[in-house]
Amino acid sequence: MNAIDIINKTKRSQTLSYEEISWLVRSYTSGLIPDYQMSAWLMAVCLNGLTEEETLALTYAMRDSGDTIRLNIPMTVDKHSTGGVGDKTSMIIGPAAAACGVNVAKMSGRGLGHTGGTIDKLESIPGFRTDLSLKEFEAVVKETGFSVVAQSEELCPADKKMYSLRSASGTVESIPLICASIMSKKLAVEADCLLLDVKYGTGAFMKERSEAEKLARLMEKIGKAAGKKCKADVTDMNVPLGRNVGNALEVAEALEVLRGNDRGQLYNVCMDLTADMLELAGKGTHEECRAMAEEAISSGRALEVFRRTIELQGGDPRVCDDSSLLPQARCSYIIRASYDIEVTYMNCEEIGMVSLLLGAGRLTRDDNIDMSAGLVMHCTIGDKLTAGDPIMTLYSSICSDFSEAALRALNALGRRRTDRMISGDR
Amino acid sequence: MNAIDIINKTKRSQTLSYEEISWLVRSYTSGLIPDYQMSAWLMAVCLNGLTEEETLALTYAMRDSGDTIRLNIPMTVDKHSTGGVGDKTSMIIGPAAAACGVNVAKMSGRGLGHTGGTIDKLESIPGFRTDLSLKEFEAVVKETGFSVVAQSEELCPADKKMYSLRSASGTVESIPLICASIMSKKLAVEADCLLLDVKYGTGAFMKERSEAEKLARLMEKIGKAAGKKCKADVTDMNVPLGRNVGNALEVAEALEVLRGNDRGQLYNVCMDLTADMLELAGKGTHEECRAMAEEAISSGRALEVFRRTIELQGGDPRVCDDSSLLPQARCSYIIRASYDIEVTYMNCEEIGMVSLLLGAGRLTRDDNIDMSAGLVMHCTIGDKLTAGDPIMTLYSSICSDFSEAALRALNALGRRRTDRMISGDR
Repeated sequence: MNAIDIINKTKRSQTLSYEEISWLVRSYTSGLIPDYQMSAWLMAVCLNGLTEEETLALTYAMRDSGDTIRLNIPMTVDKHSTGGVGDKTSMIIGPAAAACGVNVAKMSGRGLGHTGGTIDKLESIPGFRTDLSLKEFEAVVKETGFSVVAQSEELCPADKKMYSLRSASGTVESIPLICASIMSKKLAVEADCLLLDVKYGTGAFMKERSEAEKLARLMEKIGKAAGKKCKADVTDMNVPLGRNVGNALEVAEALEVLRGNDRGQLYNVCMDLTADMLELAGKGTHEECRAMAEEAISSGRALEVFRRTIELQGGDPRVCDDSSLLPQARCSYIIRASYDIEVTYMNCEEIGMVSLLLGAGRLTRDDNIDMSAGLVMHCTIGDKLTAGDPIMTLYSSICSDFSEAALRALNALGRRRTDRMISGDR
Repeated sequence: MNAIDIINKTKRSQTLSYEEISWLVRSYTSGLIPDYQMSAWLMAVCLNGLTEEETLALTYAMRDSGDTIRLNIPMTVDKHSTGGVGDKTSMIIGPAAAACGVNVAKMSGRGLGHTGGTIDKLESIPGFRTDLSLKEFEAVVKETGFSVVAQSEELCPADKKMYSLRSASGTVESIPLICASIMSKKLAVEADCLLLDVKYGTGAFMKERSEAEKLARLMEKIGKAAGKKCKADVTDMNVPLGRNVGNALEVAEALEVLRGNDRGQLYNVCMDLTADMLELAGKGTHEECRAMAEEAISSGRALEVFRRTIELQGGDPRVCDDSSLLPQARCSYIIRASYDIEVTYMNCEEIGMVSLLLGAGRLTRDDNIDMSAGLVMHCTIGDKLTAGDPIMTLYSSICSDFSEAALRALNALGRRRTDRMISGDR
């Protein structure tokens, strides 16, 4: 086999065999195939696609490039989101599902770019460790039914190498490549059931719902072909999920839901996803599962799962009762409406970028994070505000001049003036 | 500007500006852009194409990556063939056109793969030098009207770097890339007129006539846009051009045409191309020009031009009267028909490969050439042979076992048995 023949086949839309794809991934990971051949192949995939069989072969080849993890725990459920702004659902769904009798053992990544990562968010809880050994991870899940740890460095080295090449060669956007990247990591940690949450909209990597649907259906097929119970939901990311964006701010908001104090948009999305998870695990119909999920919140059992998990992973469990124990920003700034306005649109990715610039995220893998930084939305699309009403509050401990962030945040909102004044620049 | 934005634009079929293409080529040549980004862009071009304006910008950018050469000679005509098997036309057309009053100053490449190169062929003439200085080159053209020298190393470094990356990344087949590669080198040596001979068929890089037509029309447009009188002919390469394949063997055959002893297929192709060249230079109608070309041969003036050019470039002019002064192979082998057969097809590329394997060509740029090696075809498509008739004679000075080459040569011919015997394996 040689790389040029393989590149030419994909270029000519001919199907590659399982063996060709395995060889390609193995040879690239070991350094036998240079970057410039792999990037040419990746571009050919971006433009000509892969068949389902090829995508499955690619997923398996990437999974098999490193360790695979088998936990000695029955009925494990894994959950993955393709990433969005303010997406703190794992911290709610995990404890809620665990409270209903399934085991949620999740390996998660860190945030990059405009989206946050669950690992970073959890680490904003004082003392919380995400670098558990496999044994510790297993022990936490066995006791509480819920644990989240950082993804092992030994998992899917092919994906790491290919992902950084894709970022550097304009070959990120491709449904089969995105699918194989996600699914190889998910299949490397063996779970019985897998719930996938595919985001679309201005705050997601996929801007169009139709693209997200394609990815969702493809991931579902790959998951099922690999022998898992698998469901992929497609959910809206045209506005941030909930109100808070930023690590400690998102933990605080998740805690409010777990305490039963918040029954808004975020609560509803989480209850539906939890119900899907329970249904996958065979706990009943969607309606029965949704009722179980709601009961886990209202009874306080979900919060108790979270409290015990925090404790076992070295964190301060008192945050469950008192969010002021989470990192608090030294500075804040309230953006207010200058006129009477209606909010008509949000560039949700830009809102994520504002949070990142305030210190909540990282542009490169080595950046440090300000756990207290972020923002709180006081409005959503369709809201009518009166002059002087707060639009958004910005938080940061490292930046005291909010002017640039405030301008960028304001520009991320589509606004229509609703006062009677003659329009014009004033 | 950055490479990823440019890659993404071509990937999304958006048009690049002149400045973006210039920057891309300049940055790649200087090493600012890594191979893996360039190969991804090249693959996007292979699959999405480029507009004519983009192709022109790419051609100019590649031309401007190195020296450009302006000869102080009026009415210069350049000629380029896209490469085939047995293509010795330049050695006939050049002297014939020069004998009719135009100046043919040609910079040429070496052979690679199954096709030969004019420079290698001329160097089979004892003493012939192709590494003339620009001054010497100019002087030969001024005196005889015809000179061929090896392409300067300082010409189009961007093309050299991009071509080797294309070979190594499966991005060779692309009409705009092939066009820019050829035309950048042609435009780097300023000539008033440019005749392009685009080959199609089993012995050419383009197998389909329709593809060759596309390339021809695109090159013509680029040539005209760059201010040249330019014509692109599309010619057949489904059988070798003439009978001889291999360096000294091809010089011998070209000399037979120049001596007026060979008025077959090769003579006719050359007379038409010479007429096109003269017509481009404004010497009259195609019929008038064809008559002039034929007269240049029959009068012996074309042969005299070649003799004087050989002499001025250090070669032994006596080869013009006595081809036995050219390198002669130590060994030869005649392949004969085992049955009565009709030749129905030729894989002309394979015939070129047989010649290469006998020592006449190089697989890599550093291989040495056996100037005496090659083959002579004794038949063409449609010929009926009787058992015992010669099909092909193989020549080599480095190889005495012809069995593998003979088998491969035979397999390159489609043959239908025409004897009355019951067909079967015997």
